[in-house]
Amino acid sequence: MKFKNFPMVPRVIFGRGCFSQLQEILMPRRKNSEAPFIFLVDDVFESNQELISKIPLLFGDKIIFIPTDEEPKTEQVDVLVSKIREYTTQSPSGIVGIGGGTVMDLAKAVAIMLTSNGKAEEYQGWDLVTREAIYHVGIPTISGTGAEVSRTTVLTGPEKKLGINSDFTPFDQVVLDPELTNGVPRDQWFYTGMDCYIHCVESLNGTYLNAFSQSYGEKAEDLCDEVFYNGKLSKEETQDKLMMASWHGGMSIAYSQVGVAHAMSYGLSYLLGTKHGLGNCIVFNHLEEFYPEGVAKFKKMQERHEIELPKGLCANLSEEEFETMINVSMGMDPLWENAVGKNWKDTITRVKLRNLYEKM
Amino acid sequence: MKFKNFPMVPRVIFGRGCFSQLQEILMPRRKNSEAPFIFLVDDVFESNQELISKIPLLFGDKIIFIPTDEEPKTEQVDVLVSKIREYTTQSPSGIVGIGGGTVMDLAKAVAIMLTSNGKAEEYQGWDLVTREAIYHVGIPTISGTGAEVSRTTVLTGPEKKLGINSDFTPFDQVVLDPELTNGVPRDQWFYTGMDCYIHCVESLNGTYLNAFSQSYGEKAEDLCDEVFYNGKLSKEETQDKLMMASWHGGMSIAYSQVGVAHAMSYGLSYLLGTKHGLGNCIVFNHLEEFYPEGVAKFKKMQERHEIELPKGLCANLSEEEFETMINVSMGMDPLWENAVGKNWKDTITRVKLRNLYEKM
Repeated sequence: MKFKNFPMVPRVIFGRGCFSQLQEILMPRRKNSEAPFIFLVDDVFESNQELISKIPLLFGDKIIFIPTDEEPKTEQVDVLVSKIREYTTQSPSGIVGIGGGTVMDLAKAVAIMLTSNGKAEEYQGWDLVTREAIYHVGIPTISGTGAEVSRTTVLTGPEKKLGINSDFTPFDQVVLDPELTNGVPRDQWFYTGMDCYIHCVESLNGTYLNAFSQSYGEKAEDLCDEVFYNGKLSKEETQDKLMMASWHGGMSIAYSQVGVAHAMSYGLSYLLGTKHGLGNCIVFNHLEEFYPEGVAKFKKMQERHEIELPKGLCANLSEEEFETMINVSMGMDPLWENAVGKNWKDTITRVKLRNLYEKM
Repeated sequence: MKFKNFPMVPRVIFGRGCFSQLQEILMPRRKNSEAPFIFLVDDVFESNQELISKIPLLFGDKIIFIPTDEEPKTEQVDVLVSKIREYTTQSPSGIVGIGGGTVMDLAKAVAIMLTSNGKAEEYQGWDLVTREAIYHVGIPTISGTGAEVSRTTVLTGPEKKLGINSDFTPFDQVVLDPELTNGVPRDQWFYTGMDCYIHCVESLNGTYLNAFSQSYGEKAEDLCDEVFYNGKLSKEETQDKLMMASWHGGMSIAYSQVGVAHAMSYGLSYLLGTKHGLGNCIVFNHLEEFYPEGVAKFKKMQERHEIELPKGLCANLSEEEFETMINVSMGMDPLWENAVGKNWKDTITRVKLRNLYEKM
């Protein structure tokens, strides 16, 4: 197809406190009492009784806590799928992800792999999934990744960091409850929010852009400005607006792509395990050449929120390690093409990337 | 449910010329060669060979041309449903609406009534539909109504002008091809675009608003500004951006409502058959009291585009006719409540509405 026929999340609920409606939402989706819901929950909530008690467990439903100090891995998906298959003889009624980008991506990938054969790594790429996923629900507890609305699930595999991009990836239901973002640590709030801001800068300055993606990207950027730049909002408004910024930012990728920051931060994450939001910030901070206005504003937002980015990540890397990062980054063809154009290889050289990485 | 679990259009394609991908889009939805697609097409295109030749007719597919000089009626839905049932023994593969708001609303209503018993008028209201509609596709050829994305289909019945509001109403697929809006007459372009602008003003100034609806409404309003107020866009940009304004404007109603202009223009349409876009403009022009900034800008946009609104619509109405209009308008509880608050009946009196109508 010349233009992509974009799958949207078919059901969304938004509201402060709407998480408490989860039981009503899931009930009609229960296949029978032998087909449980599996809740994948960020382990940061393991001792949060208030949140855990609101998860509407029935019959054989199960909570699996997910460690999120590392980026999600294809192997982790395979282990989760095996565990769920051992736990229940029937296919589950659904998978519910409650957490940040890592949990969102794992929930989407697990829902896909419960109906697809083989290993998750075999599906990293574009449109390799051929079977419908099981019903899956995304409930973000931090705002910015856009994973709640996107048609990808970014995974680190043995050979590459790359998404499972497919029409079966998007959630069937998203629950947007800004109250769930209470208690996010300040630095993580900033890094993840900046993931959205950086999406927008990359999408709006990309060569793939059309009016559909532009309208979403502009709105997400406006909302990021309100939250991080103008700084005159109440706590509630900040939470509400950042959750919507993430949503629109994710939508803006529909007919667009991310760009240089994502391409290079994939290299960092692959080699060093740097978390996605932080990695984007570290890279973007050095991209004046590509996004002069966006980077200038980003630096001001760092100041305003007194955020100190880690330095010297690449100080002690070996030649081989630099080569690995550069390989991963240069493998992200569509991102570079969106950022620089079809002839991106004329200007984006290994030496150029090496010089940039050395600054980080 | 305290917060509504909003159904979104699950598939959307956007692009200049994407209408030519319709065959690819419909093919996987064909149930078999005996289950035709029924195309409801605005009769303005009856002699437009370029458009008609692109409709991918196969097997027993049928085009039905729809006169659109009047607002859609419940009776018209019933007649179309009978006609389709006579035409095909099998349930159709789907209904495809190609046209403006009237055709969008008829396509949605026909898709619902092909699986629901009784008459369309029995379903005017909120959540009265209990059976899934047949697959239905919306392809707007004029921008502004938001009907391509909304969960309502506004119909004039024997007793009231009111939508079939249900989770089964939204399209399963929308095709957004801005090139289809080539050739829309200038006054209609303005009136229908203003439908979107007025939605936004009403939604953003309403008491129902939350951050979800606000973000869509603000973006739609920004795009209307670009198109109608700033006026520095190319023809293509104007078409692209107005199509997105309509989309976001429709989404902004999700957790909101329209307001005074819609409540009163429903009265005009019911009695006089005034088309929805034009009716909204005629009413909104006199609503400084409710929307001072919005109306001021609206008047400037009229000037800029040299639009002369019809006057004296209510000049020769009888007492009884005024009463009918006021009854229809005052029946729109949720609209008034959104506009003025729970105690709207304290200030919105019959005399007040009579005085306003007399100016139109």
